[in-house]
Amino acid sequence: MEFVGTALVETPLPAISPLAGEPIERADAERLAGVLKALADPARLRLLSLIQASPEGEACVCDLTAPLGLSQPTVSHHLRILTEAGLLNRDKRGVWAYYSLVPSAIATVAELLTPPRKRATKKAR
Amino acid sequence: MEFVGTALVETPLPAISPLAGEPIERADAERLAGVLKALADPARLRLLSLIQASPEGEACVCDLTAPLGLSQPTVSHHLRILTEAGLLNRDKRGVWAYYSLVPSAIATVAELLTPPRKRATKKAR
Repeated sequence: MEFVGTALVETPLPAISPLAGEPIERADAERLAGVLKALADPARLRLLSLIQASPEGEACVCDLTAPLGLSQPTVSHHLRILTEAGLLNRDKRGVWAYYSLVPSAIATVAELLTPPRKRATKKAR
Repeated sequence: MEFVGTALVETPLPAISPLAGEPIERADAERLAGVLKALADPARLRLLSLIQASPEGEACVCDLTAPLGLSQPTVSHHLRILTEAGLLNRDKRGVWAYYSLVPSAIATVAELLTPPRKRATKKAR
């Protein structure tokens, strides 16, 4: 059931925020929307949260099914979407794959959604 | 075609980030996912970008159809979703409604998606 795609990972996130004061290009909007779609699901947000809260900052499917109350194939499906979006790293060790957050990817999404007034205020401090 | 719902606006965004190191509650994940779903569309990201880039920081449907190449009902539909999610203000003046960003709502989403290491670095500066 489990595999890693690279569809979204291979396209970099846009360099310009949609809130920067200039209309963004269609391709940039599509790329950012793709990553936001991966985030925009309650089960996937809870998965990110559970992985982040894990003692070593990583977790396998075996750790995640019980807290979410979802089946292994369903959890694997959500993990695959997050990995394909570049938000999770996947490290295969023995029979299990271990997932950890890609903080830089999530930070870039956060940065792109930060309104410029807030950025300016921070710089002024 | 145009109306303003309040479904999402009335529920506050979660106070705790999914990346804060503790598993988030299901209700918080659902609320954040709802707002991210509103953002996770190329046309809606471009609408936010166009409104932000407008001279007065506001725009009506009449300003937005041509740059997006979409019909007025389609643009109105997307504006309604963004307004319902609390990301846009809607101000009816005469025959047109004028839309502007709600920077605090977008900043809150960005803050919730900021990995804690980044927040710690900012505080340490």
